[in-house]
Amino acid sequence: MSGESALLTTDPSVVSVGAGMFADALAAQAVPVTRVGFRPPMGDGSLDDALVRVLADPRRAAANATAVERVLAVRPQLVDVRPAGEALGLEAGDFLHAGPPVDWERASGPLRGALMGAMVFEGLAADPDAAERALASGAARLDSCHHHAAVGPMAGVISPSMWVFELADPATGRRSWCSLNEGLGRVLRYGAYGPEVIDRLRWMSAVLGPLLRDAVRAHGPVDIGAIVAQMLQMGDEGHNRNRAGTLMLLREVLPELVGGGAPASDVAEAVRFVSGNDHFFLNLVMPGAKLMMDAGRDVPGSTMVVAMARNGTDFGVQVSGTGDTWFTAPAELPDGLYLGSYGPDDANPDIGDSTIAETAGIGGFVMATAPAIVRFVGGDVDFALATSRSMYEITLAENPAFQLPILDFRGAPTGIDVAGVVRTGVLPQINTGMAGRVPGTGQVGAGLVNPPARCFALAMAALAEAAPPLSTR
Amino acid sequence: MSGESALLTTDPSVVSVGAGMFADALAAQAVPVTRVGFRPPMGDGSLDDALVRVLADPRRAAANATAVERVLAVRPQLVDVRPAGEALGLEAGDFLHAGPPVDWERASGPLRGALMGAMVFEGLAADPDAAERALASGAARLDSCHHHAAVGPMAGVISPSMWVFELADPATGRRSWCSLNEGLGRVLRYGAYGPEVIDRLRWMSAVLGPLLRDAVRAHGPVDIGAIVAQMLQMGDEGHNRNRAGTLMLLREVLPELVGGGAPASDVAEAVRFVSGNDHFFLNLVMPGAKLMMDAGRDVPGSTMVVAMARNGTDFGVQVSGTGDTWFTAPAELPDGLYLGSYGPDDANPDIGDSTIAETAGIGGFVMATAPAIVRFVGGDVDFALATSRSMYEITLAENPAFQLPILDFRGAPTGIDVAGVVRTGVLPQINTGMAGRVPGTGQVGAGLVNPPARCFALAMAALAEAAPPLSTR
Repeated sequence: MSGESALLTTDPSVVSVGAGMFADALAAQAVPVTRVGFRPPMGDGSLDDALVRVLADPRRAAANATAVERVLAVRPQLVDVRPAGEALGLEAGDFLHAGPPVDWERASGPLRGALMGAMVFEGLAADPDAAERALASGAARLDSCHHHAAVGPMAGVISPSMWVFELADPATGRRSWCSLNEGLGRVLRYGAYGPEVIDRLRWMSAVLGPLLRDAVRAHGPVDIGAIVAQMLQMGDEGHNRNRAGTLMLLREVLPELVGGGAPASDVAEAVRFVSGNDHFFLNLVMPGAKLMMDAGRDVPGSTMVVAMARNGTDFGVQVSGTGDTWFTAPAELPDGLYLGSYGPDDANPDIGDSTIAETAGIGGFVMATAPAIVRFVGGDVDFALATSRSMYEITLAENPAFQLPILDFRGAPTGIDVAGVVRTGVLPQINTGMAGRVPGTGQVGAGLVNPPARCFALAMAALAEAAPPLSTR
Repeated sequence: MSGESALLTTDPSVVSVGAGMFADALAAQAVPVTRVGFRPPMGDGSLDDALVRVLADPRRAAANATAVERVLAVRPQLVDVRPAGEALGLEAGDFLHAGPPVDWERASGPLRGALMGAMVFEGLAADPDAAERALASGAARLDSCHHHAAVGPMAGVISPSMWVFELADPATGRRSWCSLNEGLGRVLRYGAYGPEVIDRLRWMSAVLGPLLRDAVRAHGPVDIGAIVAQMLQMGDEGHNRNRAGTLMLLREVLPELVGGGAPASDVAEAVRFVSGNDHFFLNLVMPGAKLMMDAGRDVPGSTMVVAMARNGTDFGVQVSGTGDTWFTAPAELPDGLYLGSYGPDDANPDIGDSTIAETAGIGGFVMATAPAIVRFVGGDVDFALATSRSMYEITLAENPAFQLPILDFRGAPTGIDVAGVVRTGVLPQINTGMAGRVPGTGQVGAGLVNPPARCFALAMAALAEAAPPLSTR
């Protein structure tokens, strides 16, 4: 009797992996069954060798632990506001842009539009047409924001006379920068360059920037990480909802803004501008996330993504273990909700450095905590909850500083693991604004998008290349 | 064959109501079963006759539809800020308080403490001891805030020199009032009366009130309903979380506050005070809810609750179909989280008019939209979700203006139906601050509480009394 198989004497206990047909059949016969989700790895087998080699890399676990630990240790603080020329050492004719490097020839419509506007704003061209001719003839030096510890939403153009937020991590002294947010609609970062766009930029440099500089300097460092932590409990996800964050930033510097001796009319205008723009704080979430992710760079053997960014033409990914290499593929068109009469034909492919939010575990990754976002970017509440849950499958850690109440205060899923993405086929979830395809248009909508799978396939191949060969062990 | 019972030829389809044993047995045999929650009605049968009579009242459906329609039609706007003496016609020696009427003899510790502080603040007593003697000898005229279209949180004491928010419904001209929020901790409304409490009240009357008055008058009506709608999508439930609401109120009046010509130091101090007090907006949610619920009063045959309020001794309920009658029972002790070393022995029973929030369908009723609240009042996220869902069982309508994203944008459960409460035994869910039992203590915690079932039993009996007798139909 003791040799009798337990299979015959006990109730069956079944775990069903992947497709549901077997589980459905069991359930119909009242057999308890545990279902486990499964998708085949990315790449139809072509990546299997690379995946095996990377998963077998003896450095990987410790390298990823180190990388994500450094990310989670960052405490982003706003320490200054000043002109980009001064902060980033940009000179006349220097223009930074979002995403991986791209030249004028391959630049997308909204990036071209933003560069044209920035040329006019800098006084390097009399009008947008002249700017276009000058840019086509190579008058500007272009480089990625990311190459300068900076980030910019959408086109992400930063020129010397624009003002930037300067963030620092007190423990390491590391810094990051981001432009000031212009508001929604017809704005430079969405590729618009009309007179109202240039006038607004001039006011931001002449009035808003100096007011914020004086307030921040009088206030002392503003704890951006603490504001992000709170906004995630207030319906913001830090990419396309930044309402609570904007109001908390304003609250933080308001006494210094009001009591700083500036003309009351300037202060009132600045307050009206900031508080009337629910996205103002995006440009502080982004450099905060940039500061976090830069801390995780250059750990040999780490498969953690340290940047995801788009220039409107290419989507680029950088990985901790592969240095400054960009793994790029054509940017895709978001699936979303359009403003007014705009439609998919009007939209440019995915653009902007704002995916640094998702890279740092917020934005699309934490939509569960900001369910109202689905009215802005599409999807529904179940999608938002399911998306956040699935991001834990491809990330290395849960950020204890960024808690999601609706998921029982679980920490934000942080540190995208290239190996996790390739192994599961689950792509990072991004939510994003959408720019018009034609230069000068501005914003046309907002939506949901994933990075191209190819970026991760290329990263995987490079990580495998950098891993110790299997045969030597 | 055609006469054969379908019971024998088709699969059984079972609906199981109440206790789960039968449903469990069926499920174990793989029989599909639909479970329906059920609790026995309130009152061990003693209320059955009253319930039958009220449910049979031919006026009820239309009366409740009318009452809740009037509630949902209200658009609360902040139209002025002024001294209570002027706004409410209070004279020296008049004191309003939270909850149903109560005299000094029966007054709870925190209400006594607040009255003592208010006597000193009004200059009617030299110190708290003298105030106590004067109050005990009948020197003050006490009345319920609710009898004056006003509400006050916790002790809810309003005296002539305190400033109040004045709200109006533009369509009907109806008005409501509420004191200005003092912040947390040792404050008058929690029964504290020390010098710092009196000094703060003096500053609020001398500086804050006039500044807010000027800003609101310069701004024009502030749409409080719109702010409540937004805060419910930003992690606030409008009773114990009012963070986003406070920041949005500040945003709304800030340009007028800054540009109004007042000394910058006063403005900076006011801004610091308001923005540093996450509960400031509670005192605008409350009169907004009061304005809504007052619109639903006095509809003959309506079983809708129009007020729930506590004075620290009694919990009182008023119902649309029974005029100004208070149905009272001893207030219960909330179950909650305590500040510092305080514990249940330090807490006073439930107190305050802030339950007007739940009466209007927010606060504890919409905890699902503010899951972070559980860290302040107790419970967990599942409790918050389940609570909000269960409130739909006892309410008459879903408020389309107050949507809850996490419940797929369902409207807040609004208009408590006494018949629904008695029929299901489900009591309204309240979350609340807790005051110290001993006068002078201040806040000791926050927690969860229900109204005493007896309030609803008494209301049911009165509604039955007012209903046409069954025999005459």
